[in-house]
Amino acid sequence: MSANGRAEMKKSRPLRADAGENLVRSLEQLKAVFVERGVDASLEEIAKRSSVGIGTLYRHFPSRAKLLAAASDEQLATVARKEAELDGLDSRLEALHLFLKELVKRTGMYHGLAAALNTVLNSDAPGCKAATDLGKRLLKGAQDASEVRSDIKFEDVVSLVGAVSLSPQKGARDPARINRMLEVIIEGLRPIQR
Amino acid sequence: MSANGRAEMKKSRPLRADAGENLVRSLEQLKAVFVERGVDASLEEIAKRSSVGIGTLYRHFPSRAKLLAAASDEQLATVARKEAELDGLDSRLEALHLFLKELVKRTGMYHGLAAALNTVLNSDAPGCKAATDLGKRLLKGAQDASEVRSDIKFEDVVSLVGAVSLSPQKGARDPARINRMLEVIIEGLRPIQR
Repeated sequence: MSANGRAEMKKSRPLRADAGENLVRSLEQLKAVFVERGVDASLEEIAKRSSVGIGTLYRHFPSRAKLLAAASDEQLATVARKEAELDGLDSRLEALHLFLKELVKRTGMYHGLAAALNTVLNSDAPGCKAATDLGKRLLKGAQDASEVRSDIKFEDVVSLVGAVSLSPQKGARDPARINRMLEVIIEGLRPIQR
Repeated sequence: MSANGRAEMKKSRPLRADAGENLVRSLEQLKAVFVERGVDASLEEIAKRSSVGIGTLYRHFPSRAKLLAAASDEQLATVARKEAELDGLDSRLEALHLFLKELVKRTGMYHGLAAALNTVLNSDAPGCKAATDLGKRLLKGAQDASEVRSDIKFEDVVSLVGAVSLSPQKGARDPARINRMLEVIIEGLRPIQR
């Protein structure tokens, strides 16, 4: 089909027939808008640039958290696929450290996402769920091995990692800063020797 | 009046007396809206509930950061007044720890403020500036005493503290959570023994 024909189709086939296909296309648009504007981008702009109307958008993603989860699900699935590699490491704290590095790396593409990460991770999108399950298991493993203090919750760790994205300059992604902040978090998680 | 005199006047007394009074009232409204809605509250709502129009509001607070700085300046001045007490402590790391506790306590009244704290602290509102100066001095003191790793910047610490406010539940202010997260940050700041 010619590009023109496709454009025609796109126009003349707004909803029913291929709502699924349109939704996938709109998800791509969604990601593009999030990359450009950060996670606070207006839903109106997202709808305007996608092939589905704002009604359909709201019906499929009734909250911004669900939209963000959908947009970042693939990246979080990639994090989850590190499982075997991380399980093979000697130190459970080191495994948690690498998991968090991966999490920052994969969620860094949308400005502000890391700050909203707790909400996204708690969604039921498959990639998000897989990453959350892995993270929780790694934390528990490190706690069972007495490498992490026992009172820490997974949500605490995710919030601390979110801090890495609270850069004073919007969108600043200084790798040295990310590394030292993750190191502070990892070192701080160790049980206190009293 | 000379142009110079007028410029002086503009600096020290930006509005007519009654307009100034209105602005103080609107600042109170502003704080109330921030308490109710969090720091992302709409500026339209703030203007609607204050005695000055949105034009005046924008003229005096051309950015949300400036609004937030004005709304939280008193609280940050209170943090800065801890100076003598903190300087009297034996450990510089402990002084920094108490400073951060105070910072969280005083900025917790607006949901989301801690997350925007780097921007607010960099404003030129007097209370914000005093708190920033104290925090920077305490960090440098702890680094000079080799109690904190030397590569850490003040902005890193503020961002990590902002994480405390990245609660999965909006507005959740669990004191035990705040304490353990601040402890993780403080312990993590210590120089690494390699």
